[in-house]
Amino acid sequence: MSGLEPLLARVVAPNPAVALGAQARLDQLTKPRGSLGRLEELVVRVAIITGRETPSLGSPVIFTLAGDHGVVADEVSAYPQAVTAQMVENLCRGGAGVNALARHVGARVVVADLGVAGELPPYPGLVVRKIARGTRNLANGPAMTRDEAQAAICVGAALVDEAAADCVGTGEMGIGNTTAASALTAARTGADPAAVTGRGTGVDDARWARKVAVVRQALAANRPDPGDPLGVLAAVGGLEIAGLVGVILAGAARRVPVVLDGFIATAAALVAVCLRAEAREYLIPAHRSAEPGHSRLLEVLGLVPYLDLRMRLGEGTGAALGIGLLKAALACYEQMATFEGAGVSERVL
Amino acid sequence: MSGLEPLLARVVAPNPAVALGAQARLDQLTKPRGSLGRLEELVVRVAIITGRETPSLGSPVIFTLAGDHGVVADEVSAYPQAVTAQMVENLCRGGAGVNALARHVGARVVVADLGVAGELPPYPGLVVRKIARGTRNLANGPAMTRDEAQAAICVGAALVDEAAADCVGTGEMGIGNTTAASALTAARTGADPAAVTGRGTGVDDARWARKVAVVRQALAANRPDPGDPLGVLAAVGGLEIAGLVGVILAGAARRVPVVLDGFIATAAALVAVCLRAEAREYLIPAHRSAEPGHSRLLEVLGLVPYLDLRMRLGEGTGAALGIGLLKAALACYEQMATFEGAGVSERVL
Repeated sequence: MSGLEPLLARVVAPNPAVALGAQARLDQLTKPRGSLGRLEELVVRVAIITGRETPSLGSPVIFTLAGDHGVVADEVSAYPQAVTAQMVENLCRGGAGVNALARHVGARVVVADLGVAGELPPYPGLVVRKIARGTRNLANGPAMTRDEAQAAICVGAALVDEAAADCVGTGEMGIGNTTAASALTAARTGADPAAVTGRGTGVDDARWARKVAVVRQALAANRPDPGDPLGVLAAVGGLEIAGLVGVILAGAARRVPVVLDGFIATAAALVAVCLRAEAREYLIPAHRSAEPGHSRLLEVLGLVPYLDLRMRLGEGTGAALGIGLLKAALACYEQMATFEGAGVSERVL
Repeated sequence: MSGLEPLLARVVAPNPAVALGAQARLDQLTKPRGSLGRLEELVVRVAIITGRETPSLGSPVIFTLAGDHGVVADEVSAYPQAVTAQMVENLCRGGAGVNALARHVGARVVVADLGVAGELPPYPGLVVRKIARGTRNLANGPAMTRDEAQAAICVGAALVDEAAADCVGTGEMGIGNTTAASALTAARTGADPAAVTGRGTGVDDARWARKVAVVRQALAANRPDPGDPLGVLAAVGGLEIAGLVGVILAGAARRVPVVLDGFIATAAALVAVCLRAEAREYLIPAHRSAEPGHSRLLEVLGLVPYLDLRMRLGEGTGAALGIGLLKAALACYEQMATFEGAGVSERVL
């Protein structure tokens, strides 16, 4: 794991003391104390993360990383593998869900190919950092070597540093990647595969049962050591998932909010936190995905999501909505008058 | 109720058939079917409301209506009555929570005085339609006459028609108005006052107990007939609550989405639906307030809110976030590519 040490060492625990100042400032605004509910919690969290009592999100960037999965050979998805590359093109042309939502909330989307199997024509803005043409089939042995997983982490981290993102959103595209995330969740948390395997893109009962069997087979074939996060990631993860581990660690290293999307992104977050516990303090769980494994991951990480809209699209769509909510919270914090400034009487009891 | 007949007659049931077309269009977009979760539900709902398969929100307007409450004489709030007028000034200067959130989501705020007790200096944009200088104490008898309640409904409706709003948000400001909303909820639903009375602006245990006692006293003093919505509203409502009944009915009459804020706005929605059942189809419940009475109202109305952020500020703050979510849903619907247009393969099973 030596190649990751410099990145991991950059992630340090934030100083929670700034929370006091932020809450005191919130309490001066013209509203009953605490009445903005979890928007106030978001403000305080971002203050802690950035170390600033008056934080700003600057330019949020959503990193939508793409990779293919050898496990699609076992027919775990409702869509053919070619859809990964086709959707990367759609993302580059601005026609995917995350593009619409990112525009809506004023975030930029960085699309990066870490391991798409097919050929992609060049697109302005498409970052090509292919580590392999998809993973191997995790049902039969390791999806990646440790070196590949580590390289993908470093690529993800480099993307964040290159973009100088003030706020990081996590997204992904990879047909088959809910199978990888389910295997990763089961391997690391000890959950039964059936409890953390969902319908992904919407498979029927028969294919769902096959997906669960594949996850069981992956655990049997790899016997991943839960105490070895890089080993678990390499065995049953994916190139885009490993890339997101790097995105999350680099966001934490830069002391900016890391807004998690759904199941895949949170699986990456679990690996990141296992590699470096301090990374957890930088995570903002945007939403609860309809995938059952996501709730298990949130529970293990001790995170309570802000939105629950039964979304299960990935790409960073949930993260985009989370960034919008963060901006809304900061708009209140920055723009609301104080009791004193507005000449509004404070409470009488 | 004859004075309301023309308004009520304008509210007609939407044609649900347009939902089929909207859902078919959603299913052509480059995403697994249903994967945008409740954002898809929002799109379909707005299509039904507007009668258009490709609806647009145009210029959303949040109506923040203000009024005072005679019941504050019984010390039910943590804040003095003067705060209503002070906060109206704050709203007119753009310093309140709803101003920040409305700017964030691109909505306009119309601030109207339907019954503030104190004097207000003129502000550009402040609409003065004072019906009375606050209500009478509902604990001792009717808060308003039926004529006053009806006049306030007509004022609220006129505001919506004057603004030609394409999407209506509901907001309010009135010290003491959670007591009125609790009494209204108990009177109309038969709920025990203790179950639908909350902390409002954040009262302590002793004042909460007093608030519950006041609600019980209001029911005993007025004996409102649950089958007479205008009578219930006049007896235990408020001028701004009655105004919101008009806002909601006029929004429904105009066939535009009516985005409900929290407890007070939903109490007004219950009255509106009792006056005209068809109005329910136009309601979009933005969020679940921390006030316990709100959940009861949502249940009675059969509405499941989109956000649950433990907010309890009112003013239209929750409605503003709901409008933002509506816009996000429509952004996906309008901007996402189709499978065919983007050359993305459809599902193989």
